[in-house]
Amino acid sequence: MSSYADRLQALREELARRRLDGFVVPLTDEHMSEYVGAYAQRLAWLTGFQGSAGSAAILPAEAAIFVDGRYTLQVREQVSAEQWSYLSVPQTSVAAWLGEHAPTGARIGYDPWLHTRSWVRQATKALEEKGAALVAVETNPVDTVWLDRPQPSTARLVVHPDRFSGRSSAEKRAEMADWLASKKADAAVLSALDSIAWTFNLRGSDVERTPVALAYAIVNADGTADLFVAPEKIDDAVVQHLGNAVRLHPRAAFPERLARLTGKRVVADPDRAVAAIFSTLDQAGATVLPLRDPAVLPKAIKNEAEIAGHDAAQVRDGAALTRFLHWLSVEAPKGGVDELSAQARLQAFREETGALKDLSFDTISGAGPNGAVVHYRVSEETNRPLERNSLYLVDSGGQYQDGTTDVTRTVAVGTPTAEMRDRFTRVLKGHIALARAVFPQGTRGSQLDTLARQYLWAVGLDYAHGTGHGVGSFLSVHEGPQRIAPGGSGFAGGDEPLAAGMILSNEPGYYKTGEYGIRIENLVLVEPRQAAGAEKPLLGFRTLTFAPIDRALIDLALLTADERAWIDGYHAEVQAIVGPQLDGAAADWLKDQTAPL
Amino acid sequence: MSSYADRLQALREELARRRLDGFVVPLTDEHMSEYVGAYAQRLAWLTGFQGSAGSAAILPAEAAIFVDGRYTLQVREQVSAEQWSYLSVPQTSVAAWLGEHAPTGARIGYDPWLHTRSWVRQATKALEEKGAALVAVETNPVDTVWLDRPQPSTARLVVHPDRFSGRSSAEKRAEMADWLASKKADAAVLSALDSIAWTFNLRGSDVERTPVALAYAIVNADGTADLFVAPEKIDDAVVQHLGNAVRLHPRAAFPERLARLTGKRVVADPDRAVAAIFSTLDQAGATVLPLRDPAVLPKAIKNEAEIAGHDAAQVRDGAALTRFLHWLSVEAPKGGVDELSAQARLQAFREETGALKDLSFDTISGAGPNGAVVHYRVSEETNRPLERNSLYLVDSGGQYQDGTTDVTRTVAVGTPTAEMRDRFTRVLKGHIALARAVFPQGTRGSQLDTLARQYLWAVGLDYAHGTGHGVGSFLSVHEGPQRIAPGGSGFAGGDEPLAAGMILSNEPGYYKTGEYGIRIENLVLVEPRQAAGAEKPLLGFRTLTFAPIDRALIDLALLTADERAWIDGYHAEVQAIVGPQLDGAAADWLKDQTAPL
Repeated sequence: MSSYADRLQALREELARRRLDGFVVPLTDEHMSEYVGAYAQRLAWLTGFQGSAGSAAILPAEAAIFVDGRYTLQVREQVSAEQWSYLSVPQTSVAAWLGEHAPTGARIGYDPWLHTRSWVRQATKALEEKGAALVAVETNPVDTVWLDRPQPSTARLVVHPDRFSGRSSAEKRAEMADWLASKKADAAVLSALDSIAWTFNLRGSDVERTPVALAYAIVNADGTADLFVAPEKIDDAVVQHLGNAVRLHPRAAFPERLARLTGKRVVADPDRAVAAIFSTLDQAGATVLPLRDPAVLPKAIKNEAEIAGHDAAQVRDGAALTRFLHWLSVEAPKGGVDELSAQARLQAFREETGALKDLSFDTISGAGPNGAVVHYRVSEETNRPLERNSLYLVDSGGQYQDGTTDVTRTVAVGTPTAEMRDRFTRVLKGHIALARAVFPQGTRGSQLDTLARQYLWAVGLDYAHGTGHGVGSFLSVHEGPQRIAPGGSGFAGGDEPLAAGMILSNEPGYYKTGEYGIRIENLVLVEPRQAAGAEKPLLGFRTLTFAPIDRALIDLALLTADERAWIDGYHAEVQAIVGPQLDGAAADWLKDQTAPL
Repeated sequence: MSSYADRLQALREELARRRLDGFVVPLTDEHMSEYVGAYAQRLAWLTGFQGSAGSAAILPAEAAIFVDGRYTLQVREQVSAEQWSYLSVPQTSVAAWLGEHAPTGARIGYDPWLHTRSWVRQATKALEEKGAALVAVETNPVDTVWLDRPQPSTARLVVHPDRFSGRSSAEKRAEMADWLASKKADAAVLSALDSIAWTFNLRGSDVERTPVALAYAIVNADGTADLFVAPEKIDDAVVQHLGNAVRLHPRAAFPERLARLTGKRVVADPDRAVAAIFSTLDQAGATVLPLRDPAVLPKAIKNEAEIAGHDAAQVRDGAALTRFLHWLSVEAPKGGVDELSAQARLQAFREETGALKDLSFDTISGAGPNGAVVHYRVSEETNRPLERNSLYLVDSGGQYQDGTTDVTRTVAVGTPTAEMRDRFTRVLKGHIALARAVFPQGTRGSQLDTLARQYLWAVGLDYAHGTGHGVGSFLSVHEGPQRIAPGGSGFAGGDEPLAAGMILSNEPGYYKTGEYGIRIENLVLVEPRQAAGAEKPLLGFRTLTFAPIDRALIDLALLTADERAWIDGYHAEVQAIVGPQLDGAAADWLKDQTAPL
């Protein structure tokens, strides 16, 4: 295996061969996926960086890696300072750095299949102001020098049955066809992998943690569709499921098919489709309608079957997590439990359900100060034991065929300090305020965010992440378009009106760097609410997640009677739903944990 | 006096003389003012419309008037359906209507001194798509046919003393000069009248309800300035106050001076400067920097002298309002009080302070169902008596040399219904939640809005206006840039971070059409807050307004102990501040009204 220095050198030589003075390496794939397959891990291969978000820019004599505040420390450990400068986003940007460092007249390459059109426009402008040019490459030069690059996965597609999806693919496509007609459009390009999985009621295993398959699709105004996916991924069951109205093509045939949409009016989503899709359509003489992917909103609004499936998954997942919390309550005080063994045990409890398809994301298993690292991922090097009189934070979830879960619990090992109990109770009060919120139809997630922060704010504390994200149905654990986050803060989705059927997380937290982290996360379902004399249709949240909240961390003096009643009511539900699935010591333990405060 | 039909006919003939096929008549002035002088009331002269917002579009055979939801009924009463079509914004727009109704090849005139650049761009695009053209006129054709048009006011400018402004004009201009240097700019154009009044510590009386003078200014990077104002408005005291660093020019010389900024880098505010300012600078070969008017933020952040002045104004204003509320408590139950007599009595109490310069806006004096009309303005035709067992809403304020006030109280005449008390108490709970909010520096007004709505939302109610607006220092009662309003809802200002020293209103409400209106409004000051262990600088609100809240409308069962304590604490302050200014029956009444609940 070549060294990272050799790899960078090889890339520079390849760039020189192509008469390029630089190149941009983002961490994404052709589908703007949050999690990408091994074949698309170009940033990690080139630099050694293992984080989930970042990008790099290479010039003949300089190279820089750009990460956000989550990865400021990690990038210094994983990426050599000899070859790379470390830069922070959003304080700077790849385009701004290139504008400053690229020589006048420089030609900077980018792969148009890995960037949005708006990124290309901004970067082009920033470089033009400095007399440099941004140049699209035909093939990615990293791939040329990455000799042992993995092939994209060839895992089989599987049919996602109607009993889980609630609607047939034909119905979904008919609705999209009506929508296309209303926009006088001929077709919509789908490139987001979860949109394609949802539209065709198919699931895959090409990407870690998200059951999607590498594919593109074009949905037509006549209700037919073209699906572009590697032929080896398709078996007879899938062919039969798709029927005659879906024409199958190799994934590689997608650009050529786009180029044949001359004269058509074609929808492409500027937030989800890469620049190459837009430029190919433009060059083909198609009229591009820059509208949102028509799968996004119906995918977010779960139907009855999806909600029933999710409920079933939560019953199962809540029991697994509760078994783990009981196990932890027995083992942790003895010593000998560490972050790795705890996360392995939790995964084992989920696997014991016999229904787990995958985790829905890499477990965050953070003991003591590691709990304060919001996107912590334990490794052999960082692994910490769960020490007495400390907090342990575990954020985890499962992919089940009937639903995707995501839950965080924070537990005290030994005796928590008064400060820990104060902070935990403030986080809990925010969680409860959001859980109990009732609001008119049309309310945006950004309008609810403050409810979850207010009790931390009152004492000068806060958390530096959003309060809630959407969740898919056996799909992405982070699913748009809705979000609960501060308005005007750069969190996309806060302006999306909440609608009945949407699932979101409710996850306020508090993090004391170097000491401990607290987060309490349940999933909630937006559902209609009634009130006598109401002048507007109302919505509220039904909590979907069932596992006890650590009562040792609750400071009763900080709770109102209503908040206490909410906790008691929630714990009664946990007991009713999870209790019957447990026996022996675990059942007794849960009974104690869920007794009224 | 000519009929409205004659006026429209005269305008059409004038347009024909100028070879124009249409013209747009907005309700604003060259300064984008919220309230405009009589000379700029072109829409009212042409159509008869007396509302505070609207516009008109005239074509050879058609004419349309555009108003928002507040004025849908009023426009039908005041404007003849024989000549005019009634259209609603934002459902349609002037540009969209012209695009549909103007014939191909039409030339539609507009006055570039009465529109923003972005309006001109949008309207130009909408018309070009239909093959029509938007054409800037040299002089306004309405003015040509409006033979008895009032001249702009010649009222004298008065110096606003440093003891009220807290900072000299030279200091303010020096700070602007530093800012201009940091932007590598040579000058900033000020056209907003309150920005000019603030920058030069001058006040005027050219516009109703706002103590500003018609003027333009150019502030230069060397700390000097050019002030454009009618010479007859200036006396020796003003000349001496302005000093040598401010060059005086007639107001009419402003365009010609702009045209001499060739080669300069000039700041102009796209939200506040009209299109003509931008086009004149462009034609002059100046580089326009489209940045916010540099007076806006420092004007919003009140200094110690301004805060002290405001406090003094509130002491006085609170006593006047409390005297009125006492008078009302005696007179209204007897019968014989109506909206007009009540508002006159309230104004008289303010005038009796001997310090009132003007009202800060037209009083909203709404009895029974008129209280539900959010921007109600009583007239002889709409005047209603204050009836037994009804609510009366009064929203009013004063301009004093030391501060601008704005306060709303809702009082029960006779016995309120249980529903009225429920609604009032929910509005009050929202008011208290906002008044008590503590939040980190950097928090935007949009993040606090929900705190004021939550108790109405819980039962399916809401109010269709923002929760709080900024307020000037002996300046505009509606002052930007900050605002408390739902995010993403078209209310400008919600994204502005709140800063210590800003004054805002706190005015949730509830309106039951045809029955009653409720609003509780106090002004609040953003100020730093401390908390033990705080990790972030904190802000909170200090309530500035002092007048009793009608206890007959409070449903104690809906209040938490904290809310009750807030009301008792607020009433104790009202008693302490206003009580000593009253005597006799009024003093006794206030004592009862401010006793603990």
